[in-house]
Amino acid sequence: MKNAPAGFTFSTVCAGIKGTEKDDMALIAVETPARWAGFFTKNRVKAAPVLYGMEKLQSGSPLAAVLVNSGNANACNGLDGMTDLRQLCRECAARLNVPEEQVLMASTGVIGARLPVGKIQKALVPLVAGCGKASLEDVATAMMTTDRYPKWRVSRLAGFPDVTLGGVVKGAGMISPTMATMLGFFVTDAGLPTDSLRKISALAVEESFNRITVDGDQSTNDTVLVLDGGEITRDKKRIKALEHAMAKALNEMMCALAWEIVDNGEGVTKVVTIEVAGARTVADAEMLARSAGQSPLVKTAFFGEDPNWGRLMAALGAAGVPINPDEINIKFDGITLVKDGRFAGGDAERRVADVMKNREFTVTILLGQGPGSYRLVTSDLSVEYIKINADYRS
Amino acid sequence: MKNAPAGFTFSTVCAGIKGTEKDDMALIAVETPARWAGFFTKNRVKAAPVLYGMEKLQSGSPLAAVLVNSGNANACNGLDGMTDLRQLCRECAARLNVPEEQVLMASTGVIGARLPVGKIQKALVPLVAGCGKASLEDVATAMMTTDRYPKWRVSRLAGFPDVTLGGVVKGAGMISPTMATMLGFFVTDAGLPTDSLRKISALAVEESFNRITVDGDQSTNDTVLVLDGGEITRDKKRIKALEHAMAKALNEMMCALAWEIVDNGEGVTKVVTIEVAGARTVADAEMLARSAGQSPLVKTAFFGEDPNWGRLMAALGAAGVPINPDEINIKFDGITLVKDGRFAGGDAERRVADVMKNREFTVTILLGQGPGSYRLVTSDLSVEYIKINADYRS
Repeated sequence: MKNAPAGFTFSTVCAGIKGTEKDDMALIAVETPARWAGFFTKNRVKAAPVLYGMEKLQSGSPLAAVLVNSGNANACNGLDGMTDLRQLCRECAARLNVPEEQVLMASTGVIGARLPVGKIQKALVPLVAGCGKASLEDVATAMMTTDRYPKWRVSRLAGFPDVTLGGVVKGAGMISPTMATMLGFFVTDAGLPTDSLRKISALAVEESFNRITVDGDQSTNDTVLVLDGGEITRDKKRIKALEHAMAKALNEMMCALAWEIVDNGEGVTKVVTIEVAGARTVADAEMLARSAGQSPLVKTAFFGEDPNWGRLMAALGAAGVPINPDEINIKFDGITLVKDGRFAGGDAERRVADVMKNREFTVTILLGQGPGSYRLVTSDLSVEYIKINADYRS
Repeated sequence: MKNAPAGFTFSTVCAGIKGTEKDDMALIAVETPARWAGFFTKNRVKAAPVLYGMEKLQSGSPLAAVLVNSGNANACNGLDGMTDLRQLCRECAARLNVPEEQVLMASTGVIGARLPVGKIQKALVPLVAGCGKASLEDVATAMMTTDRYPKWRVSRLAGFPDVTLGGVVKGAGMISPTMATMLGFFVTDAGLPTDSLRKISALAVEESFNRITVDGDQSTNDTVLVLDGGEITRDKKRIKALEHAMAKALNEMMCALAWEIVDNGEGVTKVVTIEVAGARTVADAEMLARSAGQSPLVKTAFFGEDPNWGRLMAALGAAGVPINPDEINIKFDGITLVKDGRFAGGDAERRVADVMKNREFTVTILLGQGPGSYRLVTSDLSVEYIKINADYRS
């Protein structure tokens, strides 16, 4: 298996943005400008790179490169933030010898500090010169902020030995709703037309990065890009088969990396999948899953390994959707803790307490009202989360 | 000043519900059955005493007594919970020699455990016999769960030397939205008609207990009762003046006690008032205040005494209402930290860091969009909160 899709090259350097010696910049470049799909934060306070990316997505221009930095979000800097960004994209484009509009920038880190433009300009020289020297794992490492480990995947498309899909993400805090404090870049040489790529990507993002939560906060910088640098396929039968295989592969890769983002969440000691079924509608199921998965009391009970089903019931009741408490059943990894709205007894509680000692488990909530279901990956809320976030800037 | 409104008597005992020697039951009794207003949780999972109270409120029956216990919420016990409650209310009424429908019960504590009916029955004997021996402060103490101190007030109505208003509340975790894991009982001998009492009480609850948050969780048991045991006034002019004085006194008392509930919040080290002004509408202002006041990242920054305005901006952007980030101004106790959406500089930051060392401060958020304003009292999110809630039941 190739370790990256054909045509893509990567580079990373330490520009000193974080004041450490760790890599804090990455460049993703592609030989033939790529068709792409882009997804951005729904926060009304959007970082400059997000506003710029949304504008470029509208314009329909292909992408030759994505410049990434960690340590500084370039958010809440007003017009200065956009001026800094445009200057850096222009210089990067010139060094790569591509049109300015084919370079995007993505930033993550502290809000409200100007980008250290001088440092980044200096770093652009080795960054562009180093293209091809770094791996996807190096890119994933350079993107990290409070992440515990680099998150990346490479896979070959089932049935298409010549097609490779690669992905890198970063996450940590501010994870949820509708995307996280996350950046995610996916690259392929599949050769899909733009409309296919965008449709497939939108579905996969919805099933993965939009279904995770660490703290319910929503970032100013969330960005997921999917780039296809392969020669476009004209054969309709091949497109159909490619679409099918890519949808499956991208969904799997994004779900796996989304899970890893929660597993990397600040202070996380438990990764809990909340599965709601039997709600009236999917929308109801989502509200119930989010109310349970975002309740601080439920999350501290996960941290305390306490089968505190009363807090789960209270969170479901507070979701704002009609439910019948007497028909609710709740299971932990298949063990029934709540039967028809009531406690299933001390023996069940002891077995569930054992399940909760694991780092991962699934809470299934059955409502018996209809066909609506939803799955959300959440975490516990730990002492360490508070410590990390109380000290983050100092 | 009398230390309680005429006609009201109080009693407390230790029934052993919590397994400690502290008082865990209280009785509020009134000589002449009282007109009353009642406010209950909006959680769809409602405890038995809430369902029973809502039914009684509908029925229009006056109240002779309220039986209160801490240590057990009598929630999620299905029909058994209602059977237990009815039996206890019946026995309490018989001992007090009042009609059964004139006794309410209010419970707070662990969800999903049956009430220890035998223990409570036994406790009813000294509880009823002790009527008149306890003070409002004793009642406030018996209601406590994880509260730090008893919360109560007595005041004389301005201009009405013969009218007294008393109140007790308990709070702690699960504080918000639309009421807290709280019980609140207010007693007066004002002699207001029921409709006046209910209108005035509804406004005061809206301005106080509905505007506090500790963890965004919503309880199954929240209850606020306002009892007026005074002889009903027929003089229309006196009613008008009484209404005016009572509205002011009840609002002040409820706001003061609501603030104390946050000050008693689990692990709270900061009590922060969020004032939003200049939003398009009051509804927008409320959503912005709640988004800022409930964000775990904002609350951990309060705990860390970190002027992390970027998190405030991100929380405002995530509130789901249209805002113009470039017109936002944020002040801490009057010191501008964000001017027109941007950082006001290192000097302001240092001064705000000093403000944040206080236990109480106010964050003012100005949007320049319209006349909508809202005030919310919130807390920080501390290491202690996690420890308390991870260990609560063990």
